[in-house]
Amino acid sequence: MSDVKRVVLAYSGGLDTSVILKWLQDEYKCEVVTFTADLGQGEELEPARAKALKAGIKPEHIFIDDLREEFVRDFVFPMFRANTVYEGEYLLGTSIARPLIAKRLIEIVKATGADTISHGATGKGNDQVRFELGAYALMPNVKVIAPWREWDLNSREKLMAYAEANGISVDMKHKNGGAPYSMDANLLHISFEGRHLEDPKNEAEETMWRWSVSPEAAPDQAEYLDLEFEHGDLVAINGTRMKAHELLAKLNELGGKHGIGRLDLVENRYVGMKSRGCYETPGGTILLKAHRGIESITLDREVAHLKDDLMPRYAQMIYAGYWWSPERIALQTLIDHTQENVTGFVRVKLYKGAVSVVARDSKYSLFDQNIASFDDDGGAYNQADAGGFIKLNALRMRIAANAKAKRGG
Amino acid sequence: MSDVKRVVLAYSGGLDTSVILKWLQDEYKCEVVTFTADLGQGEELEPARAKALKAGIKPEHIFIDDLREEFVRDFVFPMFRANTVYEGEYLLGTSIARPLIAKRLIEIVKATGADTISHGATGKGNDQVRFELGAYALMPNVKVIAPWREWDLNSREKLMAYAEANGISVDMKHKNGGAPYSMDANLLHISFEGRHLEDPKNEAEETMWRWSVSPEAAPDQAEYLDLEFEHGDLVAINGTRMKAHELLAKLNELGGKHGIGRLDLVENRYVGMKSRGCYETPGGTILLKAHRGIESITLDREVAHLKDDLMPRYAQMIYAGYWWSPERIALQTLIDHTQENVTGFVRVKLYKGAVSVVARDSKYSLFDQNIASFDDDGGAYNQADAGGFIKLNALRMRIAANAKAKRGG
Amino acid sequence: MSDVKRVVLAYSGGLDTSVILKWLQDEYKCEVVTFTADLGQGEELEPARAKALKAGIKPEHIFIDDLREEFVRDFVFPMFRANTVYEGEYLLGTSIARPLIAKRLIEIVKATGADTISHGATGKGNDQVRFELGAYALMPNVKVIAPWREWDLNSREKLMAYAEANGISVDMKHKNGGAPYSMDANLLHISFEGRHLEDPKNEAEETMWRWSVSPEAAPDQAEYLDLEFEHGDLVAINGTRMKAHELLAKLNELGGKHGIGRLDLVENRYVGMKSRGCYETPGGTILLKAHRGIESITLDREVAHLKDDLMPRYAQMIYAGYWWSPERIALQTLIDHTQENVTGFVRVKLYKGAVSVVARDSKYSLFDQNIASFDDDGGAYNQADAGGFIKLNALRMRIAANAKAKRGG
Amino acid sequence: MSDVKRVVLAYSGGLDTSVILKWLQDEYKCEVVTFTADLGQGEELEPARAKALKAGIKPEHIFIDDLREEFVRDFVFPMFRANTVYEGEYLLGTSIARPLIAKRLIEIVKATGADTISHGATGKGNDQVRFELGAYALMPNVKVIAPWREWDLNSREKLMAYAEANGISVDMKHKNGGAPYSMDANLLHISFEGRHLEDPKNEAEETMWRWSVSPEAAPDQAEYLDLEFEHGDLVAINGTRMKAHELLAKLNELGGKHGIGRLDLVENRYVGMKSRGCYETPGGTILLKAHRGIESITLDREVAHLKDDLMPRYAQMIYAGYWWSPERIALQTLIDHTQENVTGFVRVKLYKGAVSVVARDSKYSLFDQNIASFDDDGGAYNQADAGGFIKLNALRMRIAANAKAKRGG
Repeated sequence: MSDVKRVVLAYSGGLDTSVILKWLQDEYKCEVVTFTADLGQGEELEPARAKALKAGIKPEHIFIDDLREEFVRDFVFPMFRANTVYEGEYLLGTSIARPLIAKRLIEIVKATGADTISHGATGKGNDQVRFELGAYALMPNVKVIAPWREWDLNSREKLMAYAEANGISVDMKHKNGGAPYSMDANLLHISFEGRHLEDPKNEAEETMWRWSVSPEAAPDQAEYLDLEFEHGDLVAINGTRMKAHELLAKLNELGGKHGIGRLDLVENRYVGMKSRGCYETPGGTILLKAHRGIESITLDREVAHLKDDLMPRYAQMIYAGYWWSPERIALQTLIDHTQENVTGFVRVKLYKGAVSVVARDSKYSLFDQNIASFDDDGGAYNQADAGGFIKLNALRMRIAANAKAKRGG
Repeated sequence: MSDVKRVVLAYSGGLDTSVILKWLQDEYKCEVVTFTADLGQGEELEPARAKALKAGIKPEHIFIDDLREEFVRDFVFPMFRANTVYEGEYLLGTSIARPLIAKRLIEIVKATGADTISHGATGKGNDQVRFELGAYALMPNVKVIAPWREWDLNSREKLMAYAEANGISVDMKHKNGGAPYSMDANLLHISFEGRHLEDPKNEAEETMWRWSVSPEAAPDQAEYLDLEFEHGDLVAINGTRMKAHELLAKLNELGGKHGIGRLDLVENRYVGMKSRGCYETPGGTILLKAHRGIESITLDREVAHLKDDLMPRYAQMIYAGYWWSPERIALQTLIDHTQENVTGFVRVKLYKGAVSVVARDSKYSLFDQNIASFDDDGGAYNQADAGGFIKLNALRMRIAANAKAKRGG
Repeated sequence: MSDVKRVVLAYSGGLDTSVILKWLQDEYKCEVVTFTADLGQGEELEPARAKALKAGIKPEHIFIDDLREEFVRDFVFPMFRANTVYEGEYLLGTSIARPLIAKRLIEIVKATGADTISHGATGKGNDQVRFELGAYALMPNVKVIAPWREWDLNSREKLMAYAEANGISVDMKHKNGGAPYSMDANLLHISFEGRHLEDPKNEAEETMWRWSVSPEAAPDQAEYLDLEFEHGDLVAINGTRMKAHELLAKLNELGGKHGIGRLDLVENRYVGMKSRGCYETPGGTILLKAHRGIESITLDREVAHLKDDLMPRYAQMIYAGYWWSPERIALQTLIDHTQENVTGFVRVKLYKGAVSVVARDSKYSLFDQNIASFDDDGGAYNQADAGGFIKLNALRMRIAANAKAKRGG
Repeated sequence: MSDVKRVVLAYSGGLDTSVILKWLQDEYKCEVVTFTADLGQGEELEPARAKALKAGIKPEHIFIDDLREEFVRDFVFPMFRANTVYEGEYLLGTSIARPLIAKRLIEIVKATGADTISHGATGKGNDQVRFELGAYALMPNVKVIAPWREWDLNSREKLMAYAEANGISVDMKHKNGGAPYSMDANLLHISFEGRHLEDPKNEAEETMWRWSVSPEAAPDQAEYLDLEFEHGDLVAINGTRMKAHELLAKLNELGGKHGIGRLDLVENRYVGMKSRGCYETPGGTILLKAHRGIESITLDREVAHLKDDLMPRYAQMIYAGYWWSPERIALQTLIDHTQENVTGFVRVKLYKGAVSVVARDSKYSLFDQNIASFDDDGGAYNQADAGGFIKLNALRMRIAANAKAKRGG
């Protein structure tokens, strides 16, 4: 245990990571560097600095970084180019943030001459895997300390006792039993797990949801948005170009207002068990629908089908923490290539929890009104060709049926 | 042309197929058998009998069949076992009805000693392919007459002129320019194509929709449904067991009431062009969501992922008309096998156009509350195991990063 | 460590498992049951009984089972129905034997009231995974002791010292440095790893190979075999029906005589590193080629392509030890379904290391000589249909090229 | 028919395309441009010029192009980067040449102000599809004349009668009944179809084969080759760097000498029937094996598996004529990306029809001798990690087995 010199801790400033900070100092007799990321989770980060200083961290070893633009531009948007959905429903809001945190942890390890990372993810979840696979891929000999897999503070009570014994302030919320759910938030989503939700036949309580009004409480008036895409990425809302993270924040605001993007799910964790989670992904839900809309007129059929066939695999890679793997990067190369002409305009309608595409247009459109028309197309398409098309596609089945008949089958 | 003796026509009794009936008699000098199917499209079928009789069809050559139960039980439900969606959105309402019509056409060909089938699908669409691939697979040497690919009545005007010249009654609707959309309906959906929709940047008019109220007009009160599944198929709603087609009709009624299941889409036809369609699939939309819900607790992770990986291919087969192909049947074998334990209960909430799963339970549940719990699980899961799991999964990436570092990369 | 009562050990009677036997008795103070399987590895098994007795195992706790027929019939043949090859080359000879051993270990655990299994596989290889995944799938709460992951006898020297200290006889081979390779054999193959082979740029020595003559030494006269298949499985050679394991033994004999089935490979282990192995699979190499031959005339094109697309995934499952997983069983259902008509005759030619299919025939043949013919086919196929087939298949590419031209692209 | 002005004909100078040339002039009253490609088929091309001149083609309308380097560099090598094999066996020697011919036909159409292409492929084969799909993709409004689908010269006798009536010289071979097989050759392979081969239970005659000696007649001495790869492409043989087409020609010479690369196959044509073909691909057979060899040490496991999973689909695209499609190009992007580090050395052994990899090395090797070793690795790999790896991978199966046991299953 004694060979750890300096450890970079993914530090939120909350109770758990504050206890971990102290525990690392005591247990490993090592220097701790704290890293706190702004991913748009909507919390004040400066208090984390004060707490870190109080815990004895050197000022130059406290990193508080605004990663919002990098997060949306380099992680969220590339993922949405693939219309990525895990197990048919989950938009991967937590999964996609982890590789960025892993990347930044390693950058700070290198910048501060550290040799180890640490995080507050438990031994039962996916996040430990995502953090550590990322870290190992980027720095193969980094050491990892995952306190939840090591220590004996394996209950809320022991954790609070440790905190109090070590002068770590415990706020009223925790004294009163802690949050009713385990939550995680960033610009893409907020998630809820645990407690009441641990029985998948319990309906989530209305009071749980944070980012979206209930559809019942949403405006009685539908709202239309004009979304512009370039090369598969959203670039403007209602004619206003913004940075990636501003666009997503705007979609969250609008989606939340209309009660869009709630999801209640039982999912399969990479570590082997099923788990129940609830998610609010207002902006992402709109973005997915709109991206499919712009692809529907700009993407070749077989390219679209190839993407659809590969998407679940790509989603699984991200879910399981393989963002920094060579196979994810290889698939991304293909996905990005397909987005060259995914440029144009989509109009969506938001209303009471639902988002629908109502119109789409593009200068790269492959929609040929003339050929698709029910009316005479002036010879652009020869209907008689369809007879040969069908005959040849049927041939193998006809030969088989004839062969069977000859056998008396 | 003269070698056609007796032709079985898929006959709706409407203008188009009435003209086809007459045209077949004139052009091919052949006897015509009419087949009219009740797939739950919600139209009176007996008028078709009167029209057929008037057109000189022998009474014993007029087939009007109620196929609703067979349709839902043997076609719709098997398809939903795979969570089937084409191009990310389309629930295949039209596609799944065609193989049943093809099957019945061939049965009637054999029963009446006919040698040929005919249908009213155009030469630009998918339905011609679906009818004919099915027919050829089931009776390899059947002859096919597709009038829209052959004749010169290739405009609405010519068709009506032919009708009037031949004493076929043309109702006011057609005289006034015909339906504003090309529609197709059965128990799974109603579809709209053509006219105003031919430009994908035109929003569909609210007056177009038939089966669902607009979400805006839906009840302000959410409604919960308890759905029971056995082996992947819905068997009861709110505790009442019904036949397959009754269940789907009930879901349509409830979904339609809550504005659920509208879709506006540009899709890729099998014959090569893009086309814009609007669909109402109220019951199917609920069913898909609920089926994923029951699978989420009863299906093994890797089996679920295998199904997800294969689903787009399965959907493509059905969309393109390959229901009766050996590859669809092979995939169905796998899909049906996986449904053995997909039995249990799902509660869904319907509100203003949205359907959500809020609870699920099953005696075959693979959800282990003990292991998934954030609290102590009494040793059911050893968190330390996760360290080894991650280390070995990272190994290949660590070796690669080390090799790269050695090369100075 | 003390909670192990009775352990079933996969016991070969060799040095390693003899040491393990003793170590288990000493370390865990538990009763040991030995299990020795005849998988056609070509070694005497009765000496294992004498050694076990000498080590104090009760006679009723010594299991020596002839599993040859079960191995080939229920494991090897089902795998060959899929034309299974891992990473383009490896026929999975070791991988496919492990699930049967796992199954039998668990049967003996249950029959003897034991609670634990143990095996001699190292902590770096795939076999530990295959044994243990199988065991856990079949008996979820079984305990596993993998001595190589636990003990400190982690070198050849320590192992021999322990053996000598505990009265375990060490034969001359081991005293002289042990086998030059780590070998594993069963009816499907013999494998070689380690030592000289650990550098992938060293050519394997000619003296290493055991089952096959070098192609150079093979007969100068080619030999033809007539193979008969039923439902995808080999049933007869040169007109003689035999049991599954006799057929494979016969193919091994004939293949070995002609120098067939040698392979020198670097493969990717499931535990994360690359490893170099050499394999002799004479009978399997012939069987794979012949099975593809009979499928080539009896399988529908799209079914064959579906199988080809899924095969690498199926191979990966078997390689990684997931034979008893629900996803392997689901895939097997599909594979077995496709073999219904894979019945018929294949003639292969064996010569100097190569096997070629030279003729095939089946009453289920889908080869239609009339249609395939270059000569006039009497109207069975209308060449003009091909024009329409091509036109419609080209349509999406033509629309795209036209759209690009319009954009001036 | 009269709207064809100038047609570019893929012209070999042989009987069939000479008749087509004349027939085009007569039937379409159009000007003909001839295009003859050197793809390494090993025939004199200048006689084609003389014949074209004699047929009245303007000298500037006679194109005889040496495409050998472009063929191997831009078509064959990219295809081999994917280890491409159709239906488990066929190396696509004919398929891969067609898109280059299509490309050159269209270039000549544009250069000569023509509007139409023509070719001598029959209406039953794949080549018509490959030529025409390529042409349409590259020039969407090009006209195509496929005489075999149009004319009534549908037998050898009629063809020869037409030739003689029109002063086209018919050589002795054709007078004596023509070639016993339909053949096609280029630098990648020579193929044989038809006649004696049309019955798949007839063994091919030894006299048929052209490029390879029979294994029986091959040298009694094995020959070793050292092959060097860069980014997935062969660049040198035995230390000598050569152009792509020279490398393949050299491999053909060496492979042919050792009887390598013969294949006898029943394959599934894209137009729907099965067909029997025999192929000699000496160089390609060596190249495939060697490319897998260099990938085995330089490619990440999951990238290699992704490639293996996609390969059959990629092969199918090429076989069916979709080289110029956007989906093939998208897949190629991924494939090429993976080849970045596929650089290094492979030693193969050629002997009596068989090629084996015996050694491989690369500065990009991911083979870590230390970790793979059976001996102590000095802590590079912690064997105890494997226990956790297995436990978590088994978890879902254990939960399922426990749930089943609880149900009494």
